[in-house]
Amino acid sequence: MRLVVLLVCACFVSLLRAEDGSRLWLRMERNADAAEVRVERGTKRTATVDIAVRELEDYWKGDGKVVLRVAEDGPARDGFSIGRTEKEEMVLTSASGQGLLYAAYGLLRMQQVGDTLGVGQTVSDAPAYDLRILNHWDNPDGTIERGYAGRSIWQWDELPGTVSPRYEAYARANASVGINGAVLNNVNAKPLALSSDMLRKTAAIADVLRPYGIRTYLSVNFASPKALGGLPTADPLDADVRQWWVGKVDEIYRLIPDFGGFLVKANSEGEPGPQDYGRTHADGANMLADVLAPHKGIVMWRAFVYKPSSPDRACQAYEEFMPLDGKFRDNVIVQVKNGPVDFQPREPFSPLFGAMRHTQVMPEFQVTQEYLGQSIHTVFLATMWKDVLSAQTYHDGETVAAATLRKVSAQSVSAIAGVANIGDSENWTGSDMAQANWYAFGRLCWNPDMSAAQLADEFLKQTFSADEGFVGPMRQVLLRSWDAAVSYMMPYGLHHIFAGEHHYGPEPWYHPGGDIRLDWLPSYYHRADSVGLGFDRTREGSGGAAQYHEPLSTLYGDLRTCPEEYLLWFHHVPWSYVMRNGLTLWDNLCYIYNHGVDEARHFATVWEGMRPYVDATRYERQKARFDRQAKDAVWWRDACLLYFQQFSGLPLPADCPPPVHKLKDLMKYHLDIDNYTAAGMDKLP
Amino acid sequence: MRLVVLLVCACFVSLLRAEDGSRLWLRMERNADAAEVRVERGTKRTATVDIAVRELEDYWKGDGKVVLRVAEDGPARDGFSIGRTEKEEMVLTSASGQGLLYAAYGLLRMQQVGDTLGVGQTVSDAPAYDLRILNHWDNPDGTIERGYAGRSIWQWDELPGTVSPRYEAYARANASVGINGAVLNNVNAKPLALSSDMLRKTAAIADVLRPYGIRTYLSVNFASPKALGGLPTADPLDADVRQWWVGKVDEIYRLIPDFGGFLVKANSEGEPGPQDYGRTHADGANMLADVLAPHKGIVMWRAFVYKPSSPDRACQAYEEFMPLDGKFRDNVIVQVKNGPVDFQPREPFSPLFGAMRHTQVMPEFQVTQEYLGQSIHTVFLATMWKDVLSAQTYHDGETVAAATLRKVSAQSVSAIAGVANIGDSENWTGSDMAQANWYAFGRLCWNPDMSAAQLADEFLKQTFSADEGFVGPMRQVLLRSWDAAVSYMMPYGLHHIFAGEHHYGPEPWYHPGGDIRLDWLPSYYHRADSVGLGFDRTREGSGGAAQYHEPLSTLYGDLRTCPEEYLLWFHHVPWSYVMRNGLTLWDNLCYIYNHGVDEARHFATVWEGMRPYVDATRYERQKARFDRQAKDAVWWRDACLLYFQQFSGLPLPADCPPPVHKLKDLMKYHLDIDNYTAAGMDKLP
Repeated sequence: MRLVVLLVCACFVSLLRAEDGSRLWLRMERNADAAEVRVERGTKRTATVDIAVRELEDYWKGDGKVVLRVAEDGPARDGFSIGRTEKEEMVLTSASGQGLLYAAYGLLRMQQVGDTLGVGQTVSDAPAYDLRILNHWDNPDGTIERGYAGRSIWQWDELPGTVSPRYEAYARANASVGINGAVLNNVNAKPLALSSDMLRKTAAIADVLRPYGIRTYLSVNFASPKALGGLPTADPLDADVRQWWVGKVDEIYRLIPDFGGFLVKANSEGEPGPQDYGRTHADGANMLADVLAPHKGIVMWRAFVYKPSSPDRACQAYEEFMPLDGKFRDNVIVQVKNGPVDFQPREPFSPLFGAMRHTQVMPEFQVTQEYLGQSIHTVFLATMWKDVLSAQTYHDGETVAAATLRKVSAQSVSAIAGVANIGDSENWTGSDMAQANWYAFGRLCWNPDMSAAQLADEFLKQTFSADEGFVGPMRQVLLRSWDAAVSYMMPYGLHHIFAGEHHYGPEPWYHPGGDIRLDWLPSYYHRADSVGLGFDRTREGSGGAAQYHEPLSTLYGDLRTCPEEYLLWFHHVPWSYVMRNGLTLWDNLCYIYNHGVDEARHFATVWEGMRPYVDATRYERQKARFDRQAKDAVWWRDACLLYFQQFSGLPLPADCPPPVHKLKDLMKYHLDIDNYTAAGMDKLP
Repeated sequence: MRLVVLLVCACFVSLLRAEDGSRLWLRMERNADAAEVRVERGTKRTATVDIAVRELEDYWKGDGKVVLRVAEDGPARDGFSIGRTEKEEMVLTSASGQGLLYAAYGLLRMQQVGDTLGVGQTVSDAPAYDLRILNHWDNPDGTIERGYAGRSIWQWDELPGTVSPRYEAYARANASVGINGAVLNNVNAKPLALSSDMLRKTAAIADVLRPYGIRTYLSVNFASPKALGGLPTADPLDADVRQWWVGKVDEIYRLIPDFGGFLVKANSEGEPGPQDYGRTHADGANMLADVLAPHKGIVMWRAFVYKPSSPDRACQAYEEFMPLDGKFRDNVIVQVKNGPVDFQPREPFSPLFGAMRHTQVMPEFQVTQEYLGQSIHTVFLATMWKDVLSAQTYHDGETVAAATLRKVSAQSVSAIAGVANIGDSENWTGSDMAQANWYAFGRLCWNPDMSAAQLADEFLKQTFSADEGFVGPMRQVLLRSWDAAVSYMMPYGLHHIFAGEHHYGPEPWYHPGGDIRLDWLPSYYHRADSVGLGFDRTREGSGGAAQYHEPLSTLYGDLRTCPEEYLLWFHHVPWSYVMRNGLTLWDNLCYIYNHGVDEARHFATVWEGMRPYVDATRYERQKARFDRQAKDAVWWRDACLLYFQQFSGLPLPADCPPPVHKLKDLMKYHLDIDNYTAAGMDKLP
C-alpha cells in the first residue's frame, strides 16, 4: 500500500514566530480558503458537528475533501473511524456527533504530527474511560488551591452576563484531547457554590462547554443544607436534609439539563461529612446518589481521608473504605488518589485499586504540580501515571487501569479524574512545558495504552516543533524528568518532606510549633534517627504493606525483596544497609541526590540546544525555568543530605561534590507564598 | 577510657618510595631494633609461633612489649584475643599456635590501619569458615587457566630441589588474611598431578606452607586410575579402582601428613567422572571420601556441571545435585559457584545454596577476573561476594553465608573457596588494584560480616596510603567499581556475551562456526530478537526461576516483580517494556551502558588526583589501567548497543553520545590471546 505523508507544513510555517503559548498544542495555521468539508445527508447538524466542520474547514490541509457521517453502526461510545478512500476523501464516521468532533481533532492531530494513512486504509479509535474529568480546585474568590498559573479562569464576578472567550478556548483544548467533564470548583467546597446565583453563573459556563462534549460537575460541601439551607442538620438520613438536596438538584437540572453530578470531599481535613452524624461514607454518598439518579447524575466520593489519630495516614483510606465495598449505589464512584498518601513525587499505587471488587473506583491524578516543582520544574507526569495505571494489583490479575475500567454493574460508568493545572496566565499553565501534563492526562484517559514516549512526541510536535532535532532530545528530557525529580527530591520512597503548607522546596525539618497535626510534619514520614531512615510499614510497623494483595504484601513487607524505589516507604532502613548495587543506603542517598542534580543540569543544557527550534518568548521563559530547576535540585540535595547527615553521622562520600548551601541558612529560609500562589522565579535560598 | 592511637608511621615513612607492588598489603617498615616479644612459659615454641614472634619483632612499633600465650581456655578454632594491659603490654592469646600467628597479623593490621585499643581493653576475633581455601588453576606446564598475572608461581621443574622464596611470601600473605588452604593445581586436572614425582614436588611446597597454617590440597582427575594407574576402568565401585586410590592416598599422606584432600571437577566440560560408568556424583565423591577419611582428608566435589543437551545450563546443577542431597559422606563438601552459570559480572545466587539441607555446601568465588576485565579493569569483588553471601535463600531463613556455615553433621566442616588471581608477576596479581580481591577474599572468609567499605579501607590503607585524601576517594572507586563494570558489560541480568574462549571484551555475536556447543555461544544467553532481549526462565521458559524458594520463585518468575538487576536473566523482555523509572528497556539499556562508561571515566579522573599519595611506579601502572578500562567501557557500550540495535530496530536516544566504533569493525576485531594469557595493555579495537 502506498503511504502518503499528510501535510505537516502548518507547524513549520509558524516556526520561530513570537508565541505566547496561549494556543497550547493547537497551533495549526488557519487556512486562507476553507477546506472542503461535507456532512453526509442524514447526519444531524448539531452544534457539536458544526464545530467539527469549522475546525476542519479552518485547519485541514489535505488534498481531498473530508466527509463526516453519523452512522448507527459506526463506532459507539464517542469512538470514531477515519478512512482514506480511493478518491482521496477522508471519511470520518461515528455513532455520535461527539464522536465526529473527536474524529476531527484526531485527523488534525495526525496532520500535525505527521501520521500517515494509506489509500483504502481506515483507523478506528474509542475512549477507554467513560468519564474523563478535570477537577478544578478553584475558589469562588478566584484563587486556586495548588494553582500555579495565575488565578481561576472562571470570572464569577462577570458571570453570567459576561462570558470570557477563554471558556470556549478551554473547552476546545479539552475536547481536542478527549476530556469530557469538568468539576468547576474546589473539593474544599464552599456551600455558596450551590447558591442560586452561583448556579446561574455555572449554567452559563456549562452552556459554553456543552457543544464541546464537556459536562459540568460541581464539588459540594456536605453541610450545605445547614450552611445554605438553614436546616439544623446535614444528617444524610434526615428527611428534611434529603428533601433539601432534592430541591437543589432539581434547580441545578432545570439550569443545566446535562449536569454531570457532584464531587464530594467529606470528613477529610476538616470538611464536614456524614460521620459528623454517626453515618458512614456510604450513607452520605448514597443519599446524594439517590437524589441525583433520576437525572442520571453521579456522585464522585473521595477516599482521601485520614485522621490525626490514625497510626499511619497511608493506611486509613483502605481501612475506612474496604468495609464499605459493595454498599454504594451504582451511580457512586469512589475517587481514589493514585497513591496512599497525597500526590507525592513517587508512591506505590493505592491498595484500594483492585481491592474494592463491588464498588466503582476512579483514579485521581494531580496534573497540577503541587509536589513536583509547581510551574517551574519540568516533570512530565505521564511517566508516573503510566507507572500507576499499568501496576499489577494481583486482584484477579487486574492492573490499576483494568480494575478501574471494569464496571461493577450494568449501570456503572468508568471514570478518571485529574486535578487541573490551568489558570488565567496567558499560556494557561504558567510553564509552557507543563501544558504537556494537561495534554497527556487527556490522551491517557482516552487511551491508557499509549506510551509516555508517544504522548511526549505528540505533545512536542504539536506544541513546539516536529523537527526530529527538537523532538529527539526533548522526548528524552520529558521521559527522564520524573525519575530526575524523584531523585533530587524524594528518592527510594521518601515522601512528604516538603516545606510546610505551600510544598515548594525541601523542609525535612519543618515544624511550625504549636499543636500541629503530627501527620502534617515531614518527620512523621521520613522518621530519620541515628539508626536509619524511612517509615516502617511492615508487620512490625504500621502494617501498611499488608494492605496489598499477595505477592506484593510479602514483596513490599520484606526489606530484602522490597523494590528499591519504595524502600523507605515501607521500611525503616539502617544507614549502613547495603543495597543492590553494593553501596550503603547513606552512600546511595548521596549519589542519587547528586544524580538528580546532574539530570536537572543536563535538561538545562539540552534546552540550550533547542534555541533554533523555539520562538524566543517560549525559549527564554523555559530556559529560565530549566536553569531554576537545576538550582532547585541543588537546594533539594543540600537540604536533604545535610539534614539527614545529622542523623546518619556519616560523611558525604569523597567523590560527592561539597554542598553549596549551609544547613542553618536553608533552615532559616522561608518562601513567602501560600497555598494559592506559585513560587516566584526570582527568589531562591 | 583513654584511647591511644597505635603508631601508623610505618606506611608514611615508606610513602612515595618506588615500589613494585611485591609487598602487597604487608608494607610495614622493618624495625632497626627488634621489638620486645615474649612467649609465655608453657606455650610451645612451634614453627608457627616462631613466625609470629619474628613478625612482631620485625614490625611491631608499639611502646610496650608483646606477650604471646597459648591457653587451653583461650579462643578456640584458631581464634584469638588481643588485650592491652595497664602495663602497656599487648597480650595475644589463643588456644592454638596458629591462632597466635593470626593474632600477630591482626595486631600489625591494627597498627597499619590506625585502629586503637584502650588500656585494659581486649578484642577477640575468630574465623567464620573452618576452611578458607584458594584454588589455583595452575597447570604442570606453568600456564594458568584464567591467569592474568604471568605464569604459575609453582616452579615444578625446579622442585623439589629448589624452593622459591616466593612460596613463603605467598604463605605469609595468605596467613596474614586468614587463608588456610591451597589447592595447588587446576580443576581441569592432569592425571600426572598424582605421579610420585609430582607428589614429591607438592610435598616440598606443603612444607613451606605448613608453618603458616596452610594446608595443601590437590585437584584430581577422576580417570587417574586408568591414565596413571593403568587400570582398565575408573569406575568408583570397582574394587581395583578403590584400591588404587587407597595406595595413592597412602603415598600422599606419607609425604604430606596434613594433606587437606581432593578437589574434583567430574563430568563437566569434558572431564571424566563417575557418570562415565553409570554412577552418580555421590558414588564418585563417596568412594574418594572413604579413602581419605582415615587420614582426615576431605573431598570438595564441584557442582559446576552442564550438558549441551540441557535446555538451560543455569538449571542443571540444581537438577543433578538436589536428588543427591543427603547421599554424600560427611567428609564431602559440594563446591558450588556463586551463580548458576559461571562467575558472570552479576548473577543471582545459585539456587543450590540453602536448598541442599543434608549436604555440606561451600561457595566458590572467582578472585581472578576471568569475566571482569582480567588484570586491567579495577573491579572490587567484595561488593559482589557480599551481595551473594548476604542474599536470603528463604530456606529456613538462612542467608547464603548461614546456609554454608551451618554444619550438616558433627563431623562436617564449613568451607569456602576462591579461584586465585596470583601469578609470577612482580606484584603477584598483574594489577596492583587486583590485590584488593585477594585481600578481601581472605578477610571475608574469616568474617563475612565485614562490609565492603571496611575491606576497602583496610586494603587501601595498608597497600597504598592511610591518608584520608587517598582512602576517601579510592574507597568510593572500589565500592562503585562492581556496579560500574556490570553497567558497561552486562546490565539488567545479561550474561555471557563475552568474546569467545578468552572472555576479554564483548562479542555478543560470537559464533566460530562448526559444531560448537550452543551453550558456549552468547546468543544462547542473550536471546536477542525483534521482540526483545533476555533468557526466559519463567514457567513458560526454562523454569529456572522455580528452583528458588518462595517468595523468590514468584518474585523472579514474574516480570512485574523481578528485581531489575536480574530482569534479562529471568525474562525475555520486549524492547518497549517500561521499567520502573518510566523508560523503556531499550532506552534504559542505552543509558546504563553510558552510565558505565561515565563511571569508568570517573575512576580514571579520581586516580589522577591520587598522584601525591602513590609511588610513581604503581601510580603509572594503575593509571594506564584506569585509562584503558575507560576505553574498554566504550568498546563494550558500542559493541553491545550496536549489536542489539540490529534486533530492536530503535534509534539511540537523542541524548546518548554517538558510538565511537562501527559494529562491523568491532566484529572483525579479534584479540589474539588464549585462555592462559592476559589481554595486553597495548591492543584495542
